[in-house]
This record gives sequence, C-alpha cells and structure tokens, in this order.
Amino acid sequence: MPDAVITAGLIVIGDEILSGRTKDRNIGHVAEVLTSLGIDLREVRIVPDIEAEIVAAVDAMRVRYSHVLTTGGIGPTHDDITADSIAKAFGVAIDVDPRAAALLEARYGAAAMTEATLRMARIPAGAALILNSVSAAPGFSIGNVHVLAGVPPIMQAMLDDLAPRLGTARRMLSRTVVFRVGESRIAAGLAAAQADFPEVLIGSYPSFDDQGYATQVVLRCRDEVLLARVETVVVALRDATA
Amino acid sequence: MPDAVITAGLIVIGDEILSGRTKDRNIGHVAEVLTSLGIDLREVRIVPDIEAEIVAAVDAMRVRYSHVLTTGGIGPTHDDITADSIAKAFGVAIDVDPRAAALLEARYGAAAMTEATLRMARIPAGAALILNSVSAAPGFSIGNVHVLAGVPPIMQAMLDDLAPRLGTARRMLSRTVVFRVGESRIAAGLAAAQADFPEVLIGSYPSFDDQGYATQVVLRCRDEVLLARVETVVVALRDATA
Repeated sequence: MPDAVITAGLIVIGDEILSGRTKDRNIGHVAEVLTSLGIDLREVRIVPDIEAEIVAAVDAMRVRYSHVLTTGGIGPTHDDITADSIAKAFGVAIDVDPRAAALLEARYGAAAMTEATLRMARIPAGAALILNSVSAAPGFSIGNVHVLAGVPPIMQAMLDDLAPRLGTARRMLSRTVVFRVGESRIAAGLAAAQADFPEVLIGSYPSFDDQGYATQVVLRCRDEVLLARVETVVVALRDATA
Repeated sequence: MPDAVITAGLIVIGDEILSGRTKDRNIGHVAEVLTSLGIDLREVRIVPDIEAEIVAAVDAMRVRYSHVLTTGGIGPTHDDITADSIAKAFGVAIDVDPRAAALLEARYGAAAMTEATLRMARIPAGAALILNSVSAAPGFSIGNVHVLAGVPPIMQAMLDDLAPRLGTARRMLSRTVVFRVGESRIAAGLAAAQADFPEVLIGSYPSFDDQGYATQVVLRCRDEVLLARVETVVVALRDATA
C-alpha cells in the first residue's frame, strides 16, 4: 500500500538561471516525474551560487518536505559549491569518496584522475551515490536531500536512478474540461462547484487563440469516484454555458 | 547617477507549475528584463495557490530585496487568490477599486461588469495600478511588491509598464570565452583567475555537442576596466589550453 502523501521541494542552484543567461529546463521535468510517482512538489526555489543561500534553502526545506532535490553546482570548477554546501548544512565532513573516484576512473582512465576530476568525487560523509549513466560523475543522497547535476540530460539520468528510492504515493488523478468562453463567464459556477467539493482541487487556466477565449478547467483529486462526480458537475456547467 | 545595486526577488504563484502541467515561461523573461535594467535577481520561489504560502514568501522576500515581483493568480476565478494574499501580507483592506473597474468597463462595456469581472478589479488599499495593454485587468504595486499576471503575454505587457518605475542600476557587464575542452581541463586555471580577481564573477558552464566537449566561461562585473583585464587572463588560459 503506497504512502498517503509524499511531498517534495526542489532547489535550483545557479547564477546563470537568475541572470537569464540560461533558461531552466529542469523544473518542468522534475515536476512531471514527481507527479507521475504520486509525489507532490510543493515548492521550488532558485538560489545563487552562494554557500549561505544554498544552506538556508536546504535547511528550510528539508524539515518541511519528505524529499528535497537540488540541481546544479556539482561540476569540477571553483563555482561548483553544492556538495560542500550540503555537507555544511548537515554538519558532516566532505572529501574524495573512493566509490565516486572508482566510477570516474572506470570511465575516464587513471591518467584523467587530476585534481579537477577528483573534485567531482567529493561526497559528504555518509551519503549514498546517485548514478550518472551519461558522464559517470555521481550525484548523492544524504538524509532526505538528493543532489543532482544541472545539465539537463545528466540530471534526467540521475533522476531515473533516484526515482525508485523516492517511494510512491497514491497518484493525484486529473481531468481537464475545456470551456470555449473566458473565465469571467464561468467563475461563479466554478466557485459553487469548489464549495460543493472542497476535497477536489479545481484550477482554471485561461487562454486565447484564433478561435477566441478558452478556459481549461483542471480537476485534481486522489479519489476516482469523487473526481468523476465533480467532472459530471463541471461538464454540465460547460454545456449550460456554451 | 544610477543606484549602486538594486535587488529583486520573484514569486511564481501556481499549482499548475508545480504539477508540471504548465511549463513556466515567465522566470526567464523577468530575469532578462531585470538584468537589462542592471537589477540583480537574487532569488525565485514557486509556491502553490495557498494563501499562507504566498504570504510567507512575500514576507520573507520584501524585507530582503529592493523589489519583489509576483506572477500568477490575479484572474476572476475562485483559485485566483494573489490579490487577497498580498492585502493580508500588508495588513490592508481589499475591495473593488474604481480605477481598475473603470479600465475594465472602458474595454468590455458596462454589460460585462459582472461580479466575476469585478473580481479582477479587487486591489489592496493604497496600491498603484500596473497597466495591462493586452486585456485591461490591471496588476498593482504596493510597497515594494509588484503583482503581475501569469499568462506570459499579459505578464510581459505589465512588466513593460512597470519597468521604468523599478529604477536602474549600474549594469552588470559580461563577456563569454568559449573553451573547446571540458571543464576539468581548465578548472585549476579558472580557480586561479577567480582568486586573482575576487570582484569578478567567473562562471563555468559545460556543454557537449557534435564537436565534443566545450565550456562557456562567463565573466561578470560592473567595472569595464576590470572586466577587460580578467578577460585577457582567461583568453590567455584558453590559448594555452587549445
């Protein structure tokens, strides 16, 4: 029997996202994967490459959510400070990890094991490795914090490795009912439906295309029977509005 | 003379981003516009459509940054709770604002002024309006918090209206030097350059394409002379590495 609710927070680490130079492509992917596992992503923070900011975000979120994922800042250069920041947040030592060094040496050979390469093998004491099928340098999990790369294909490979260990909860189910009118026309009806079904999350998302205004009404709930009941109500509202 | 440093935080409000159903397209745009104004975006938070979460994020960020921008949750439906949440954060009343109602009536006519439409005219007491050239329903500024729509073209139009009131600071300048080798090969040289030029932000961003590994080294600084000096050092490092 899956857990009732598993929650998660995500911390995206990187000056390049905050400056607008790089457009984040990880948040949407993490959100989709977690949702597919039935895990509720409750909060995302994007923070700069500053140790105190990373530590503060990790400390705020790890006591609040079942899991905290981080992306970015685990490469070999001076601006990659995530592993050291996480060690600091947990108050543990950090050094080159023999398991991580062995993964890098197996991929790149003994001659490539320079100081810079070994920097990617620095892992906080007590952490478990997260495998990286793309470029070998691993991520890691310590407590409920899971540290992933920032480069999207590498992050995705690490998340594939990590996902089975995050647990699965009863999946959030959803239905979408499309109205071919603007939100204002249906706001009262939706508010009434929400009042009648407080356990169902009713979201309303406007759009405008060459056919005019439309509204996507998204119903979300973990109970199939309840979801079907509210869907019937909202479809009736749509048919009465058209 | 522009201010030395102006900072900003961004709060993206919406369950649909956290569920992965909608991919955010606002963070990158806001980051680019702020950077072009010389304003440092220091932090982004994505929070759900829950009043306590919105209030907590606003209260945490408005004391920390020169400006806080929010996107999302200002439409006419029951799940649009941003305006009420901001009023709560500031401890002020909120009601239909005659200026906002006039903007909506001018666009849509008196017959369209239903309860739902008027919900979009609810503005916290004491707030200034942010104009919306796309669909008339305004955003607003109260204190240093600026509330924008979530639909990207509307958010962008509001940001165009708001931008001249955010101030301008001395712009962060940047140079990019592209290395056709992986990060590990240049990590030691970059770390030395960073140690020699602590006032310059040196970021290293790996990539991999059909020509093999590459690293974009981005130098950021508000001082043109200093930036040119560090660029010379990093270009010499590149030429020595090739």
